[in-house]
Amino acid sequence: MPFSSPCPVARATELLGDRWVLLIVRDAFDGVHRFSDFQRSLGVARNILSDRLRRLVDGGVLALQPATDGTAYQHYVLTEAGTALFPVVVALRQWGEAQRFAPGEAHSRLVERGNGRELAYMQPRTQRGRVVQAADSRVVKLDPG
Amino acid sequence: MPFSSPCPVARATELLGDRWVLLIVRDAFDGVHRFSDFQRSLGVARNILSDRLRRLVDGGVLALQPATDGTAYQHYVLTEAGTALFPVVVALRQWGEAQRFAPGEAHSRLVERGNGRELAYMQPRTQRGRVVQAADSRVVKLDPG
Repeated sequence: MPFSSPCPVARATELLGDRWVLLIVRDAFDGVHRFSDFQRSLGVARNILSDRLRRLVDGGVLALQPATDGTAYQHYVLTEAGTALFPVVVALRQWGEAQRFAPGEAHSRLVERGNGRELAYMQPRTQRGRVVQAADSRVVKLDPG
Repeated sequence: MPFSSPCPVARATELLGDRWVLLIVRDAFDGVHRFSDFQRSLGVARNILSDRLRRLVDGGVLALQPATDGTAYQHYVLTEAGTALFPVVVALRQWGEAQRFAPGEAHSRLVERGNGRELAYMQPRTQRGRVVQAADSRVVKLDPG
């Protein structure tokens, strides 16, 4: 499928339709910056990690910066486009919480930094804030002409 | 990475960290049910499509049903766990719209079925409805003990 798909989901998945890419983005939100720390977190082969980090840099989601600690290491940091993936990571997390754990089985939790309260379940809404179910929505495709 | 990861994002990506899986789920929300219609929409090889459909059925996201039109075809339909992926698909779509199209470039749009109004941009929120940025959140990991 070419990059010129008129479907925003298709274009997003060009980069994001990969398990390691998604887990690297998750780790970046958790404050992981160094190659060796991604490797330790993910337990992934170096060549695969290198490839996925390169895709994320080429795709404008991560940027390379000199380390702030005075060492020679370079840091991977989320760009603005990368930070904009927060809703994607939260949606994956909340689906995983609801659908991929047994009742009562423990999992990590996403909370407000200040008070430790769990975030609300995120759902599509109208401009006025009413929840929209899939059945109450439709996709308007582009005119093929 | 074992299925026993305590991270809900990791468990979600076990199934969802794949481009074809995500596009099949997108098509299922758009009302695609038949193998041949998925194939036409995605332009993917039959063996890959078979594999991904099987993963989605095994993963409890799609279910096989006899066709309602009296033919011998079986239909793939979203289960409850599959329908719960709506926020994931919307998050991917909205990121794609914002980050993967040139300004003014046309794309398909997700609207309310009744009145054709575009949905709001979906963001993580507190229980009280205030938007939460990534920097204002943190992940509480499980005690390794």
